[in-house]
Amino acid sequence: MPRSEKALIERIRLQARRFGPIVKTGIGDDCAVLRTPPDHEVLVTTDFSLEGIHFRREWHPPESVGHRCLTRGLSDIAAMGGDPVAAFLSLALPKAISQRWVDRFTRGLLDLAQAANVTLAGGDTAQSPSGIFADIIVLGFVPRGRAILRSTARPGDRICVTGELGSSAAALDQLLSSRKKKLTPQNYPRHFFPQPRVEVGRALREKKLASAMIDLSDGLSTDLRHICDESGVGAEIFSPALPVGADPDKNRTAALNFALHGGDDYELLFTAPAKKTLPSTIAGIQITEIGVVTRRKGIFLVNSSGRKTKLQAKGWQHFSQGR
Amino acid sequence: MPRSEKALIERIRLQARRFGPIVKTGIGDDCAVLRTPPDHEVLVTTDFSLEGIHFRREWHPPESVGHRCLTRGLSDIAAMGGDPVAAFLSLALPKAISQRWVDRFTRGLLDLAQAANVTLAGGDTAQSPSGIFADIIVLGFVPRGRAILRSTARPGDRICVTGELGSSAAALDQLLSSRKKKLTPQNYPRHFFPQPRVEVGRALREKKLASAMIDLSDGLSTDLRHICDESGVGAEIFSPALPVGADPDKNRTAALNFALHGGDDYELLFTAPAKKTLPSTIAGIQITEIGVVTRRKGIFLVNSSGRKTKLQAKGWQHFSQGR
Repeated sequence: MPRSEKALIERIRLQARRFGPIVKTGIGDDCAVLRTPPDHEVLVTTDFSLEGIHFRREWHPPESVGHRCLTRGLSDIAAMGGDPVAAFLSLALPKAISQRWVDRFTRGLLDLAQAANVTLAGGDTAQSPSGIFADIIVLGFVPRGRAILRSTARPGDRICVTGELGSSAAALDQLLSSRKKKLTPQNYPRHFFPQPRVEVGRALREKKLASAMIDLSDGLSTDLRHICDESGVGAEIFSPALPVGADPDKNRTAALNFALHGGDDYELLFTAPAKKTLPSTIAGIQITEIGVVTRRKGIFLVNSSGRKTKLQAKGWQHFSQGR
Repeated sequence: MPRSEKALIERIRLQARRFGPIVKTGIGDDCAVLRTPPDHEVLVTTDFSLEGIHFRREWHPPESVGHRCLTRGLSDIAAMGGDPVAAFLSLALPKAISQRWVDRFTRGLLDLAQAANVTLAGGDTAQSPSGIFADIIVLGFVPRGRAILRSTARPGDRICVTGELGSSAAALDQLLSSRKKKLTPQNYPRHFFPQPRVEVGRALREKKLASAMIDLSDGLSTDLRHICDESGVGAEIFSPALPVGADPDKNRTAALNFALHGGDDYELLFTAPAKKTLPSTIAGIQITEIGVVTRRKGIFLVNSSGRKTKLQAKGWQHFSQGR
């Protein structure tokens, strides 16, 4: 690193200095100290962002890496219906990295933190033998007993998603293909600057509309399996109902595959009791009913003729492993 | 990795399954859900343990790596006078690592977690391009307003440490020297299995004996500077009073240097108001008065003749950088 760890911490500390009513003591002590609102529970999530696994420096501008890093954590809090309050960043950097890269990374992360009203309250720094290693921790609160779990879907519940699916994976496919080595981030915001659905998750919790919830980080086929496994249920997905991301370069079959198996969408997948009436949008984000929870185990894709085929979990293994 | 990430998570989940009264939902959902005791604040700390920076596979048995990884986090909670309750482990492993290494690492970490009554409640796993990258997050609670900060030392306060200093660095010096390539961990427990001083930290908080506190992870000369910088004070350290770790292979000067500048002791450094009476031991651990907080800035070492010399911060930069 072209700087001491102390100088790096001090720089991030100055950029991050904004304690809210929750964060009492942030960067600069052994621990951060956070006030807890009465009758609430604490939510904690941690997510790696590793160079070569979750991003590539030649593809992703530093602001995008910082933004995506925090999105991963915020999206997990959203998936519990919680309010994110504080983030912690552990960052290991190789010697050769420029201060400019680090500043742009931090800006991408802090811009999203500010938009989400989250304070960067601590973390750790180290020198990495090679490559950039970031671990983001996000802490949030949820009223006691009101966190929306993966394990509480019931047969008969409708299955819904926010927004649209597959656009992030479609962009990645272009990056991986020989045709393009670079994409303009502004043209592919869902890949480079995905928006965690914190407001939607909070509204679903407040209105008691969701019986179970997960965020779509690994792909629908994999994440739906987590809900089914934890809840001991099965599912049927109506493929014509899927809100497939627009991709002019791709045919419908390819786009459907991205929507079913592509990762990094950071939309919410939730189940809703049949008797609840769902709005078509929440906080400006489209809500789409895509299937139903079944007593029978197994996850099936139902096409427009009603034919059922087993849906394999082919979700995201991150792009180091090819796709 | 010779296993899928899912299998690894499932394996750790089975080994870790022990939810206490605090951890309501652990590994297996988007977030962990933790109950918060009323009138308490949350403490959060994160610490890297990186291969080649914080440990070496040829020197440190996997159990030691896991133990030291969690010690780093527990020690930060101890330094606030808090009660640790939950740990989160983000672990990136290279393809070539054996399941046996991972199991032994996990055992080292979970044995200490059990001893400290801490639940492993979540984390993340990924494949590392090279080397082992671990990030430990520890969450604890402290009664509202009672966290012992770095910034509250006052002129006239006595400066104290727990246990003895320098043994971990002395062991590392042997590893780094050409004389020895391996040390038997049982003979060097302070290096391979350092004990975080959680009970001492808690007792100091309960009895209101400490005005400021930090843990000695980077070395006395560096960590004392943190307290002085944050509190806006100076310090004088009486070198004859330092509880220097016994090291039969070293002369007094070398041992004193390890005690002043060596890292990874995980003892507590605290300041105590002059009017408070300190016991000679707390929870079986020796308490030693080593100096005094001064209004005059700067940190000075005072020898047995009363001569003062400026104490440079030459603490730990981790052994990747030499020492």
